[in-house]
Amino acid sequence: MAQTTPNHTVTVSGWAAHDSSGKIVPYTFKRRENGVNDVTIKILYCGICHTDLHHVKNEWGITMYPVVPGHEIIGVITKVGSDVKGFKEGERVGVGCLAASCLDCEYCRTDQENYCEKLQFVYNGIFWDGSITYGGYSQIFVADYRYVVHIPENLSMDAAAPLLCAGITVFSALKDHGLVETPGRKIGVVGLGGLGHIAVKFGKAFGHHVTVISTSPSKESEAKDRLGADDFIVSSNPKQLQAAKRSLDFILDTVSAEHAILPILEMLKINGTLFIVGAPDKPFQLPAFPLIFGKRSVKGGIIGGMKETQEMMDVCGKYNITSDIELITPDRINEALDRLAKNDVRYRFVIDIAATSSN
Amino acid sequence: MAQTTPNHTVTVSGWAAHDSSGKIVPYTFKRRENGVNDVTIKILYCGICHTDLHHVKNEWGITMYPVVPGHEIIGVITKVGSDVKGFKEGERVGVGCLAASCLDCEYCRTDQENYCEKLQFVYNGIFWDGSITYGGYSQIFVADYRYVVHIPENLSMDAAAPLLCAGITVFSALKDHGLVETPGRKIGVVGLGGLGHIAVKFGKAFGHHVTVISTSPSKESEAKDRLGADDFIVSSNPKQLQAAKRSLDFILDTVSAEHAILPILEMLKINGTLFIVGAPDKPFQLPAFPLIFGKRSVKGGIIGGMKETQEMMDVCGKYNITSDIELITPDRINEALDRLAKNDVRYRFVIDIAATSSN
Repeated sequence: MAQTTPNHTVTVSGWAAHDSSGKIVPYTFKRRENGVNDVTIKILYCGICHTDLHHVKNEWGITMYPVVPGHEIIGVITKVGSDVKGFKEGERVGVGCLAASCLDCEYCRTDQENYCEKLQFVYNGIFWDGSITYGGYSQIFVADYRYVVHIPENLSMDAAAPLLCAGITVFSALKDHGLVETPGRKIGVVGLGGLGHIAVKFGKAFGHHVTVISTSPSKESEAKDRLGADDFIVSSNPKQLQAAKRSLDFILDTVSAEHAILPILEMLKINGTLFIVGAPDKPFQLPAFPLIFGKRSVKGGIIGGMKETQEMMDVCGKYNITSDIELITPDRINEALDRLAKNDVRYRFVIDIAATSSN
Repeated sequence: MAQTTPNHTVTVSGWAAHDSSGKIVPYTFKRRENGVNDVTIKILYCGICHTDLHHVKNEWGITMYPVVPGHEIIGVITKVGSDVKGFKEGERVGVGCLAASCLDCEYCRTDQENYCEKLQFVYNGIFWDGSITYGGYSQIFVADYRYVVHIPENLSMDAAAPLLCAGITVFSALKDHGLVETPGRKIGVVGLGGLGHIAVKFGKAFGHHVTVISTSPSKESEAKDRLGADDFIVSSNPKQLQAAKRSLDFILDTVSAEHAILPILEMLKINGTLFIVGAPDKPFQLPAFPLIFGKRSVKGGIIGGMKETQEMMDVCGKYNITSDIELITPDRINEALDRLAKNDVRYRFVIDIAATSSN
């Protein structure tokens, strides 16, 4: 891969964890100069994803410290490289999980860069020039324009930030099953968190009957009254599970804690799909019978390609869909991560990055 | 459901197991008179499926003794009910796993009777008239014509018998993924047994690159030289597994013994499907990562609908595909079941039912 941007000369203020305590502290570092294919972005908002928590604590054993997390980045372009197409200074843009891919494999060529074998993430990755990538918990970002999307004017920039990871992840799953274009299906959403609540919004916007499946009976009114879900099933209630057998076309499972998928599979109609976007530490126990006797599938997926991410943003603009967020100042990142670890957030923390400048 | 054929007056010689020893002995029983929708079939051949073994030994705890096994039934029509359409006396026909379904649900109406909730199997099922069904280890069969298919003239009747369960099971999985019509894909077949060897034949006939994945290195020459497989992977060989990562579009897993699916999943390309037709006793250990990072699916399925079964038979006629079989006389059924339990058969036992008549 050509080393297009060798010079890391831009001084950036950000926030990083330096060890597996996961404690976030202010951190000043260098980014590359704006290359011919790059845009420089003044970051305004950055969402806090559960993946950030895994990384700062090195729970997956792959963290390269210091780590500057953040892959739900929203800001305004301040500089544009000479070969950049489609972006100009002052525009509202977003950067999600992707920093680089090979641009040449069958997946890159078919707008599925997210499955490129040489994919690099926006933080804790290795960029084309050999540098470790630093994410959006920082004031400035330099991005290859091929991994940047426009943010529709009608969307709030803070509440749009989580769309760049949580949003595209659930959108891509729905689109994979034709649920963006074709209304009237019965879909289930397991887990009402950062991903799940956006999935409910998408499901209703696209004209589906949406059932939320949750361990928490207390979330019923939230799911139905505020998010517009049509039905609510408590996953520990055998009667409700029995009544729901063979009733859903598609179920999106957003839960990353260990849980049983047999009762979820049995809620699917023949030829139905359980789409998994959460990744529990331990393998699922997958009995063959509910698959075989129901022609059912278990599928997985991770975020989406860049073309699809722009499409998702445009669709969010059309339906005015954003995440429900709790906006925090950067000095509260550690508190937010602690609360996130306990799922104590409705539904996504977003850091008001610019707020610091004036601190 | 209308009780269309209440009178069980036809005396039939067959073979049954009477307890969980699984020992098969001659057994005389009654079948219903030929009803208005029925054809009576003089059975000539019946395949021995692994399911028969589970049933005679009550390994699934659902056997109603005495059980007359057999759901790969081939014979000649000797009687035709007044409302039967499309069949006449003297024709070569087959009956597979299905004896009855509701004929009215969304699955029956869309040629997926095999997923009807009221589905009844040809043995160890409860027919519309309340009687327990008896299978093809017998000399005469009475079948509702809606669960009967024609056997192409060019196919050997004995070797065609296993198509009615093993054949349709793998055909339906391939068809579900567009592999009957569209050539040039890379497909894998896990397990070279009754189902697997037919899958290899289908795969090659439909123009695919076929890789056999097996625990037995000794099967390589058989797979390649005799069945025409393009490639062979020993599933215990880490180098071969590593080299095959992300190489296959579709993998059919025919193994019903417990086995790891992680290395199999990793052989799939992005968006690839692992289709399971064997049902191990214990759940699969399914890690989320190979699904999520590969947009992969694990799907299951059981046999096929009747329209699809006829299509499969016609395709077999077109390509002259049958099962490799070992033909036995009925007095050797117990020996065959013992050998089948050890997977000592290439690749399917078929009982020469008519041979007995002259014994």
